[in-house]
Amino acid sequence: MLYRISVRTRGRVDFQDITGTVSETIKSSGMQSGICHIFVPHTTAGVTINEHADPSVVEDIMAQLDKMVPQHGGYRHLEGNSPAHIKASLVGSSQTLFVDEGRLVLGTWQGVFLCEFDGPRNRSLLIKIIPDSTHG
Amino acid sequence: MLYRISVRTRGRVDFQDITGTVSETIKSSGMQSGICHIFVPHTTAGVTINEHADPSVVEDIMAQLDKMVPQHGGYRHLEGNSPAHIKASLVGSSQTLFVDEGRLVLGTWQGVFLCEFDGPRNRSLLIKIIPDSTHG
Amino acid sequence: MLYRISVRTRGRVDFQDITGTVSETIKSSGMQSGICHIFVPHTTAGVTINEHADPSVVEDIMAQLDKMVPQHGGYRHLEGNSPAHIKASLVGSSQTLFVDEGRLVLGTWQGVFLCEFDGPRNRSLLIKIIPDSTHG
Repeated sequence: MLYRISVRTRGRVDFQDITGTVSETIKSSGMQSGICHIFVPHTTAGVTINEHADPSVVEDIMAQLDKMVPQHGGYRHLEGNSPAHIKASLVGSSQTLFVDEGRLVLGTWQGVFLCEFDGPRNRSLLIKIIPDSTHG
Repeated sequence: MLYRISVRTRGRVDFQDITGTVSETIKSSGMQSGICHIFVPHTTAGVTINEHADPSVVEDIMAQLDKMVPQHGGYRHLEGNSPAHIKASLVGSSQTLFVDEGRLVLGTWQGVFLCEFDGPRNRSLLIKIIPDSTHG
Repeated sequence: MLYRISVRTRGRVDFQDITGTVSETIKSSGMQSGICHIFVPHTTAGVTINEHADPSVVEDIMAQLDKMVPQHGGYRHLEGNSPAHIKASLVGSSQTLFVDEGRLVLGTWQGVFLCEFDGPRNRSLLIKIIPDSTHG
């Protein structure tokens, strides 16, 4: 089952908490046990897993990525969004999560974030749910 | 099949070689061919694949991450472990490995490491093993 | 189904576009719907997804990684290729892609790249294709 979900991002750089969206997708699928793959079909956005209890954590991640990949740095790509492309490759385009007893398996502090690096925009999120085979 | 394994880490930053642990888990499952997903349910730890023949390689990775994400850098998160969170998102929370003829498929020099960025601690490692479907 | 493909890289650092190779592997497998995992069995190379329309994008990624992980930086590993190992862990060794209606699901601008960080060399690329179970 492949789901396509829209996510609205709010700033040039913006980590949107999609944990609830992913959880609801799993619930609606009825899957009890298996794998949930998340894929971001964009080259200036990504997906990461990190703390979602204190919002200052993702603010620190965004700020440090801005320091590591400066907004103006003599880049060759003429569109001016090379830093966003570079951050996307650092953070990655996909995440793999486990589902057990109908629920996403996450650590106490973990949430899932769509990472916007060249927004604000409407982004797509692809979620593929793979139930454990009863023959496995 | 979902396995939960405990790993004791030894320093503030510490890459623990878990290649043997993962291999033994696969062996005990009896799976001959399929996928092995590894997931770290923590926000200040991660998992990576790199050389495990010469321990100076992971020492260099840990040292360079410390340079890229300084321990003191005007972070907002008050717990003081923002660098650990940032490194976790750079390295990633999961890895996907192949299993063939009952064995982990790795390159000659590759090993799997649990990456501690805010230790020492007792960490959990989740391993999910997905046999190839005979109907695939 | 596990495929092993050879890729020749051309420079010390070189992102080789493997999108066509991956697409052809999927086509030859006959799979209509499922998952495609890509794994690089090397410790000084990786795999990433980013824009492949304008080649200046990956040039900017390679150049910024060179800035973030300098070629000479007081590394301990005596082979002199620590920067390549570090970059491999930043970019990652695997990618997970979706297949739908017999085709790789990618965003408009996305391509798949084997990331050489210590070339030129002959590299291997492992591709595992997992059809959706009809029992799923």
